[in-house]
Amino acid sequence: MAGFVDFFSDTKTRPGAAMRAVMAAAEVGDERAGEDPSVNRLVERCAALLGKPAALYLPSGTMCNEIALAVHCRPGDEVICDVTSHLIGFEGGGPAALAGVMLTAIAGDRGRFDAAQLRAVLRPDRPYAPRQRLLEVEQTANLGGGTIWPLAQLDEVAAAARAHGLATHMDGARLFNAAVASGVSVARYAEHYDSVWIDFSKGLGAPGGAVLAGPADFIHEATRLKLRWGGAMRQSGIIAAACDYALDHHVERLAEDHANAQALARGIAAIDGLGIDLAAVQTNLVYFDVLRPDLDAPRLSAALLHRGVRVSEMGPRTLRAVTHLDVDAAAVELALQALRETLAQH
Amino acid sequence: MAGFVDFFSDTKTRPGAAMRAVMAAAEVGDERAGEDPSVNRLVERCAALLGKPAALYLPSGTMCNEIALAVHCRPGDEVICDVTSHLIGFEGGGPAALAGVMLTAIAGDRGRFDAAQLRAVLRPDRPYAPRQRLLEVEQTANLGGGTIWPLAQLDEVAAAARAHGLATHMDGARLFNAAVASGVSVARYAEHYDSVWIDFSKGLGAPGGAVLAGPADFIHEATRLKLRWGGAMRQSGIIAAACDYALDHHVERLAEDHANAQALARGIAAIDGLGIDLAAVQTNLVYFDVLRPDLDAPRLSAALLHRGVRVSEMGPRTLRAVTHLDVDAAAVELALQALRETLAQH
Amino acid sequence: MAGFVDFFSDTKTRPGAAMRAVMAAAEVGDERAGEDPSVNRLVERCAALLGKPAALYLPSGTMCNEIALAVHCRPGDEVICDVTSHLIGFEGGGPAALAGVMLTAIAGDRGRFDAAQLRAVLRPDRPYAPRQRLLEVEQTANLGGGTIWPLAQLDEVAAAARAHGLATHMDGARLFNAAVASGVSVARYAEHYDSVWIDFSKGLGAPGGAVLAGPADFIHEATRLKLRWGGAMRQSGIIAAACDYALDHHVERLAEDHANAQALARGIAAIDGLGIDLAAVQTNLVYFDVLRPDLDAPRLSAALLHRGVRVSEMGPRTLRAVTHLDVDAAAVELALQALRETLAQH
Amino acid sequence: MAGFVDFFSDTKTRPGAAMRAVMAAAEVGDERAGEDPSVNRLVERCAALLGKPAALYLPSGTMCNEIALAVHCRPGDEVICDVTSHLIGFEGGGPAALAGVMLTAIAGDRGRFDAAQLRAVLRPDRPYAPRQRLLEVEQTANLGGGTIWPLAQLDEVAAAARAHGLATHMDGARLFNAAVASGVSVARYAEHYDSVWIDFSKGLGAPGGAVLAGPADFIHEATRLKLRWGGAMRQSGIIAAACDYALDHHVERLAEDHANAQALARGIAAIDGLGIDLAAVQTNLVYFDVLRPDLDAPRLSAALLHRGVRVSEMGPRTLRAVTHLDVDAAAVELALQALRETLAQH
Repeated sequence: MAGFVDFFSDTKTRPGAAMRAVMAAAEVGDERAGEDPSVNRLVERCAALLGKPAALYLPSGTMCNEIALAVHCRPGDEVICDVTSHLIGFEGGGPAALAGVMLTAIAGDRGRFDAAQLRAVLRPDRPYAPRQRLLEVEQTANLGGGTIWPLAQLDEVAAAARAHGLATHMDGARLFNAAVASGVSVARYAEHYDSVWIDFSKGLGAPGGAVLAGPADFIHEATRLKLRWGGAMRQSGIIAAACDYALDHHVERLAEDHANAQALARGIAAIDGLGIDLAAVQTNLVYFDVLRPDLDAPRLSAALLHRGVRVSEMGPRTLRAVTHLDVDAAAVELALQALRETLAQH
Repeated sequence: MAGFVDFFSDTKTRPGAAMRAVMAAAEVGDERAGEDPSVNRLVERCAALLGKPAALYLPSGTMCNEIALAVHCRPGDEVICDVTSHLIGFEGGGPAALAGVMLTAIAGDRGRFDAAQLRAVLRPDRPYAPRQRLLEVEQTANLGGGTIWPLAQLDEVAAAARAHGLATHMDGARLFNAAVASGVSVARYAEHYDSVWIDFSKGLGAPGGAVLAGPADFIHEATRLKLRWGGAMRQSGIIAAACDYALDHHVERLAEDHANAQALARGIAAIDGLGIDLAAVQTNLVYFDVLRPDLDAPRLSAALLHRGVRVSEMGPRTLRAVTHLDVDAAAVELALQALRETLAQH
Repeated sequence: MAGFVDFFSDTKTRPGAAMRAVMAAAEVGDERAGEDPSVNRLVERCAALLGKPAALYLPSGTMCNEIALAVHCRPGDEVICDVTSHLIGFEGGGPAALAGVMLTAIAGDRGRFDAAQLRAVLRPDRPYAPRQRLLEVEQTANLGGGTIWPLAQLDEVAAAARAHGLATHMDGARLFNAAVASGVSVARYAEHYDSVWIDFSKGLGAPGGAVLAGPADFIHEATRLKLRWGGAMRQSGIIAAACDYALDHHVERLAEDHANAQALARGIAAIDGLGIDLAAVQTNLVYFDVLRPDLDAPRLSAALLHRGVRVSEMGPRTLRAVTHLDVDAAAVELALQALRETLAQH
Repeated sequence: MAGFVDFFSDTKTRPGAAMRAVMAAAEVGDERAGEDPSVNRLVERCAALLGKPAALYLPSGTMCNEIALAVHCRPGDEVICDVTSHLIGFEGGGPAALAGVMLTAIAGDRGRFDAAQLRAVLRPDRPYAPRQRLLEVEQTANLGGGTIWPLAQLDEVAAAARAHGLATHMDGARLFNAAVASGVSVARYAEHYDSVWIDFSKGLGAPGGAVLAGPADFIHEATRLKLRWGGAMRQSGIIAAACDYALDHHVERLAEDHANAQALARGIAAIDGLGIDLAAVQTNLVYFDVLRPDLDAPRLSAALLHRGVRVSEMGPRTLRAVTHLDVDAAAVELALQALRETLAQH
């Protein structure tokens, strides 16, 4: 499509020539049997990067989350997370279907709650109640707007959880975005979380792959579940090599995505009929609202698509635009132009 | 204990001499094999009473709920209920552990929400989201304060659910309390609900037993789950005869419990340092709050127990007193006396 | 039915006048809350009897088995049992549906295997294989013919299991039959089994109830599952009093059932056209085969029922007759008479 | 390793230069969102090839099996398969943990049973028994020796299953091997099976990927489970392009693997101290036994590895050698040479 730019999600990035060359030359082996050298190198690198003793390659972030729940918990246990958590509405009911866990949702501030809010839902163990077992956080919080948990807040909720005997798990689908935006390392963010995962198919621009890290016995059990669920492929080094390349070349450049998101957000703030909370735009996600009564999210989304700009609908009046490897400053300008024209003509 | 009166719960009632005589004379057979005549008579009576084609005897209301979820839903499906629902905090995580379902909680008004609130959480089916499958309501709403869903509201939420393709389930642990208080029949309340159950061990005063009713194929499948879970006993007619007796003798008298609850509530309203919402006291449950800053629920509860009055703690400053077969007007006066003295002396 | 005698199962016993009187006078409380004195006395008595630190009252033996699996195992674990085990075909798929476990069936000798057979299915742990976790045995082995595991054999398979890191569980639905027949105590039989349960609704003649015993932490977790599954009733002391009575009065008399079974078996052996393995008749179960080509199990069963004798069909040519509290020597003679006449006339 | 040849498994094949070039040039999109053109083309091609209305790309064959069980069945249902089925020992207990199903194993002839054997385990539905729901077969039967189900036998067991109301599922991990060896098309083999899958990471030599095919509503539900389990990647066209290439170039050449397997098998048959059933070597799997009492599988396997030949241990005295894309006639000769020398020297 001439002039088509895709702000739908950072999962839309396509591998470029350099990444493809790396994949084509990748050293491979039987991953399921632990014999793929590219995968083995990647998981060692990620464990070190995340400051955890062990790590495991998995096809997707959703599988990282779902396996982590099933390893940390027993059926009937309770997991505490934010009301916007990916676990609730975007993993097909997996927390209940696969791990048998109940979710307790805290209504945080754009995806982030504090230790007092956590303590308010903690309770003594009773034989008739679900056993509280795990705290889960997302860094950055996707549906919170790509917001960053401040480090002290992350540490405090982890401490409150541990004081109550809970395990702690971090969904790091966009953890690198938080690290690049804040200057805090991914290991430091994850320091007080038993398990954490990173995703290579979002801002990092690889075709797939995620790595789950944690204690050795946790990863040992997670490996069993990976095989049970059919999460092992064979010569996965093809993809793992792309992930490795992404760590080398696509981390620091996330700052460009954030700058583009800022430019987009500021442009949106200047358009009459749209609403945006600039303080919430902290990384590469730009949520904005359709304020004009004669428009709504589906109609504005369709009008933009007609002009070659794809965004995603997140609510009846809410849209999301995501900046990533495949959209640049010119694409941002194109999107703003399309928005201005649509609002003007409509 | 001399002068001991137990307002902890209506589950505390003990069978009296007449009920014991009926049990001792009960005609029995092998229930698991469908051969217990007393059980068979009871379930037929309950099916007719509830206006459903078929019914099933189960040991408890919790098993009614948990089996109903597992029959209505497949793992990964979503059940919509009030935030105070018994399913969430009092069934040991069974919804996730046994049926594999996700719960979506609506913050209703004292346990009751309306069709608009239900519609606000309904959404089109998406392959990545849990499949919305079941609406669950409690009549009366226990943690809502024993409040009664108005009939029109019950009908409307059921209609909204069905329009979206959901099945509907009613937890009728205290359905007879609603019926006696309102004059609406239990069958009419349950009319637009696919499945409904009643409990014999609460206000009705039997030692146990519950009956789940619904369509024939639903009950056929529920029977399979009953045997799978070990919910079948053998000569259960002993207990079923008590349930039958309770239907004969303990339904209309629930009005006495309600009158006692009103008397208790009015008495509490007159005591300085306690707070109560009289409008919410609609059946046999009396929730009240400790307002005095130098007291709280555990301390007031302990002080009352010292005076021979047992109530239950439902929150840091909230207590619950339940009227039932084994407490009368004199017991209410005793409780009020104990409350007055405690507040005065403390 | 005039002259009707029921050899279908020992679950068919009906409580007699003395047991009913005990039930009618039972001291009761709220069992779910741990406040029923009759239940509490019964579980303490059973724990002592079985030589285990703790015990739990449950409505049925099936629930004892299913909860034990779910406590001993995690989903995906493997349970090793005999190919005739009650778990496989009589618990509605509960082992997979409720505990998520895989069953490995050993083809034993009439329900009993030896340590060598167990060792033959043990294997080193592999990440792609189910984790072997639990040994389960039935004493007596129902579908094995009511056969008794010799004590040394029970001890040896338990030792082999433990050497491999397995937990051990005994289904003692008819453990008292084994004890009375052999003179070995129930505690001694269960000595090397982590968990064991006894059933009051079979030979012991109570209307229901079973008690699961094991280590304190096992019973703590089992209690949680009992509440989750809805296995708690309220004034269960009514039934528990019958169980207690059964322990006092119906254990030693199982010897009569065994003598009646022997008489029945010898009588059957003498009838042309029927086949029976007398060595396998060790307690109260009498399995026999229809050898005559012009007859089969359904037809012989129907013909016997026509003559007032009910037996159960266990296979195309296999019938089972069970002796119990409600059938005596005269009933045995009646059954033999019916068999002789049927075979003669057919 | 100089002279190293790997007969461990056909999962060990590494993509060659031509396949890598295809991957590097692959057209890609967001697979999870249904937007990857290479994946979409592959699944359409496979659906047509397999004669099914719809198909779904998944990362592995294990996930195909596990998702198929979960879609065909409800928790507690029973699946009937051969005692050598991959489901039993190689999918980490997934059938019970993920789908909640019980497995009934038929002791077939090298992985294949007939309709009479199937009928012998079928039984009328009883409320206390698992519901029999699904027949599963493997074509070829891996642990059966890579044996081929004759077409008539496949059709007959499917017909017997359907007559009993069972759904039917075919594990086609090596279905192309059967097709190439027999001349029967994959669609014809799968004709009477509701669902079937093929694997690209075995004989076809792609780095991963499998395609599950079946009716449209089955695939619709399977897609939901794919997202729930985290089985979706993003730019999966990279791998799908390799699968597509494999369909073009690596199907007919399976005949070479079969010829190599025959050569290897005949060579083994000629070596004293080894045992092999030549009739069972029908495709690319060569199972053979160590007969010499002074040797066993681990020792022979280690000695071969020392000589640069890797095979896999399948039992205490059983080894397996698999022919595939990366081993040729010279490798077969090398393996035979290593076997001969080892047996001679030992």
